[in-house]
Parts: sequence; structure tokens; C-alpha cells
Amino acid sequence: MNIYDLIILGAGPAGMSASIYASRYKINHIIIGNIFDGSVAKAHLIENWLGEKSIKGTDLMMKFNDHIKDFGTNLIVEDIVEIKEEENVEFGRNVFNIKTNNNKTYRSKSILIALGTKHRKLNIFGEEELLGKGVSYCAVCDGAFFKNKIVAVVGGSNSAAMASIMLSEHADKVYLIYRKKPLRCEPIMTDRIKENKKITILYNTNVTKVLGENRVKSIELDNEYDSSKEIKLDGLFIEAGSVPSASLVKELNVNVNDSGYIIINSNGATNIEGVYAAGDITNGSNGLRQIVTAVSEGAISATSIYKYLKEK
Amino acid sequence: MNIYDLIILGAGPAGMSASIYASRYKINHIIIGNIFDGSVAKAHLIENWLGEKSIKGTDLMMKFNDHIKDFGTNLIVEDIVEIKEEENVEFGRNVFNIKTNNNKTYRSKSILIALGTKHRKLNIFGEEELLGKGVSYCAVCDGAFFKNKIVAVVGGSNSAAMASIMLSEHADKVYLIYRKKPLRCEPIMTDRIKENKKITILYNTNVTKVLGENRVKSIELDNEYDSSKEIKLDGLFIEAGSVPSASLVKELNVNVNDSGYIIINSNGATNIEGVYAAGDITNGSNGLRQIVTAVSEGAISATSIYKYLKEK
Repeated sequence: MNIYDLIILGAGPAGMSASIYASRYKINHIIIGNIFDGSVAKAHLIENWLGEKSIKGTDLMMKFNDHIKDFGTNLIVEDIVEIKEEENVEFGRNVFNIKTNNNKTYRSKSILIALGTKHRKLNIFGEEELLGKGVSYCAVCDGAFFKNKIVAVVGGSNSAAMASIMLSEHADKVYLIYRKKPLRCEPIMTDRIKENKKITILYNTNVTKVLGENRVKSIELDNEYDSSKEIKLDGLFIEAGSVPSASLVKELNVNVNDSGYIIINSNGATNIEGVYAAGDITNGSNGLRQIVTAVSEGAISATSIYKYLKEK
Repeated sequence: MNIYDLIILGAGPAGMSASIYASRYKINHIIIGNIFDGSVAKAHLIENWLGEKSIKGTDLMMKFNDHIKDFGTNLIVEDIVEIKEEENVEFGRNVFNIKTNNNKTYRSKSILIALGTKHRKLNIFGEEELLGKGVSYCAVCDGAFFKNKIVAVVGGSNSAAMASIMLSEHADKVYLIYRKKPLRCEPIMTDRIKENKKITILYNTNVTKVLGENRVKSIELDNEYDSSKEIKLDGLFIEAGSVPSASLVKELNVNVNDSGYIIINSNGATNIEGVYAAGDITNGSNGLRQIVTAVSEGAISATSIYKYLKEK
């Protein structure tokens, strides 16, 4: 069976950037992932990728995709179900076996984990039952279904702010509900929220329940708003932050920090030989987690992997 | 006199990216620099900026410039001649005075040094005398003057490889002269060089003299090529690496490493309060020094500066 030099796990900015550099180093590699699965693709508008004043998340991902395709790199759109390390005498080093939902196994001498983050759940009553029935973790994906409706966004981050603004283009009314005060998004986003007449901010408030049968009808709060702890609405968008998608790599015994982010050194290397990580899933880049930091980590890791493959 | 929150020194990718983030944080700032002065603008083609398969260095810089202009940021195209720190009781912190060749002084509460690198000289006989008369440090700037001529490139890096390829589009013959073997450029570049019939590589060879009066006539080597230590040619392009442009910041007592690069921590901060650095001039990003690493460092520094200005 074919053994690649490198398999990149994840097709977001970190994985894509690593692939560009790997191609330039002529590292025989593939990417396993879905470009529309990550947090960039789910962003309404990206305005901080240098050179693009304002671009849809999906459009930016398509640009990245065109670039890697130009090198002829194989992007395999399958879900990874298992990653296992295996001793391999022939190569004098361990080999990684990546199993996918397609019942296929891909093998490589090194891997780059660029799986990003997943949304954090609120873990409240009704959240799971009403998912897809008014509860959503993706304003960009589902926003257009709420034309002339009333919706709420939970969170205080840039993502929450962006989701509120995006939803205000469809919905009649948007509540932005944040458990603290002030919002923790960038000042430019706070300004835009405050200028937007469709958006009402509820500070120091938690959503405690989502109510409705088959469709969201209302939410319950821990603080009164307009003399009531209940708000009638049609949709609830949860933007309560993110957690690293590191469950798949647990078996590899890769070191993670207290928040679950993979610990990398300045090379992008983890504690396991041949295992590198880049992008939002790591503790790198001072925790900033932006597209610009992801592409940088991808390039640094690919360069380290090139040296690793050559030396061994 | 107006005191800015931040002055960004340098208008390359690091400075530009920092400016985008500074604008989003609503940090009152300016940039002092020239977008056509840095190593990106002098690159023939950029093929590793994710999303752009192949773009001229100047075109990429124009895209970056359009982005910062969209925020209304003031880019001051003047040469910096002096940077001085001054005690300022009013602000409870030191203030930086930046003098330019235009006899102006700009003041700010923090600075970001993003001045990049400059080309390294060979320091050989004739190099200085024949500069602009056949000797050049910029193939992109001067290459077109050598149509149907014979030229040599000194160096083994990606820049040297790119310069050789670019020059082969104009010149009849290009010698690529490198003091070691093999070339230290990316494998994809080595392939392209070897496929190019106009380019001849001379390994393990140093150029010791540039000869000619008013115009370059020939160069002298320390090893024979084709039974001679002299090669007749019309142009010599020196691509012998780069050195950090840190001379301006010496007076600030910013710590630099043995190679002269500014030492930053994971915040992008230097040892001097209020002084941050980003991009090729720093020891960050594992020494990779690419556009992707520069924009990442710029974003990280701007974020740290935002916190610094708020806290103090």
C-alpha cells in the first residue's frame, strides 16, 4: 500500500497553507478534509485577511482551494474516524494509519493535525432537541431561513457580533444575549452592533431553556428583559465560543493544554515524533487564532516536516 | 502636538497586517514607510501567498495597500532618520519621537518596528564602484535592461533562483554562482532552474572581483569555469541573503540576537516597554521569514499593543 510522506488532516487555512509549502518542497502528500466544514467557510464576511477588503468565507476558501488544486494536490473529502500509529521497520520510523468513514485507510510517515475548532454547546434544556428546528450553530448556513422573523444570538465574541449583523439582514429583530458586559468583540464590531437598529443587546444574561415543540417558540432567561424572563422568537443562534477538535488525536497521546489545545513547539512539532499541528487547534500564535496566524503555523510546520523527512 | 497611540514603522506585509488589526481595534495610528521598498515589492512573482497562484510582488503590495486605505489609514511615505524615546509625565509612560527626512517629527505612545531586511553585500572589489553600472541587488527592478545580454546571479537561495529564472526571460545567458552545493532553495525551484536551458549553475564558486570601467565587463572567480577564472558578462545580480534593517533602532537599546534580528516574545514585544516588532526583522516564526509569517506577527503585535494601550 502506498505510503505518503505526509497527510494533512483538515482543509482550513492552516492545512491549505501547509499544503502549498509541502508542494514547493515536493513532499508527497494529501489533504483529508472538507473546505466547507471549518470556521472560515461558516463566516459571513472576512475583513481581516490582508488584501481582501471584504470577502465571504466560502469564497475565500474557494480561492485557497484553487491554489492547492493548481499544484495537483489531492484533497480527499472524507471524514476521519481513526488515527493510529504503527511501528514500521522498513522505514525505521512509525507510520500513521488514517481511517475514514469511506472505509479507507491512508498511510503516511508524518501527519499534520489542522482540524481547527468546533462550536461550544450551551448544554441547556431544549438545545439538542430543537437543533435544526430553530436552534443553530451557524448563522451563515441557516440565517436566510429567518426572513422577517425574530431571532437571538448567544455570545459576546466577534463571531457573535458578526452573526448578529448578518442575521439583521434577514430577520426583523435580533437579540444579542451575552452573559457579561461589555461585549468582548473588537471595538469596530461593537460600533456596528450599536448602530444597527434591528439589534438589541441584553447584557449579563444567560439563556437557560429553549422552548417549543418541533419548532423553537421562545427562550427562557435568568434575568428579566422587558418585565419578563421569556422572549418569544423563531430562532436561536449559539455563538458561545469554540473548543479544539482534538478528540480524534487522543489515542496518539499528543499533549494538550488545560483547554484542550494541542501543545506545539516553535517548529510546529508535538511531543510525538512525526506528528505536527497547526492552526486553531494549537496553543500557538499567542492564542490569537486568526486566518493569518493559521497560515503562518501551516507554513512553519510544513518546513519542519520537510526537514524531518529529509533527515530521517 | 498630536500624539498617536501607535506608529508602525515599515509598510511591508507585517506593518500592513498590523494596521488592519489596529484599525479594527480602533487604535489611532499611522504607518511610515514605502510599499515599494521592501522585499515583497522586489519579488518577481509570489506563489506562496495562499489564494494567489502567481502574483507580481508589486501587485500584491498594491492589494495590501488598497486594504489599509479602505480603513482610511494614513501611510506616510517618508524615510525615518531617527527614533527617540522621551519621558512624558502627562501620559505616565515614555513617548516615541520619529524624525523623517522631510524634517518632520511624529509622536506616539507605542511603536511597531516592521522594517524588514536589506540585501547583504559581498564586499568585493568593484561591487560598490559598479553599482548601477551592471551591479544590482534587484533583478525585478533592473532585469529588463539586460535583454539579450549575459548576466550572473550570486546566491543559492529561493531569491537567487527566482532572480535567475526571471533574468532568463530577458538575458541570453544566466550564470547562477553559488559558494556551496547543492542550492539551498526549495526543490521546486531547483527543478525549474535545471530545466531552464539558459541557466548554468556554478557550484562551490565565489565571485572575487567585478571588473570594468563605467560598465561591468567581467567577473573574477576563485575557481575555474570552462578553463578560466574570468567570465565576460554585462550584469551581476547579488542575491547573497539579507540582514535585518535594525540600525535605526540601536539607540532604543532593543535586544537583538547574534545575527542582528530583534528578539521578540510571544506577544511580539521587545525588551523595551511600548516597543513591538514584527516580520522579517524579528527572530520570530522559527526564522522562516515568509509573507504568511509576517502578517501573523503583525496581527499578534497589534493585538498586544491594543491590550498595552488599554491597560496603561
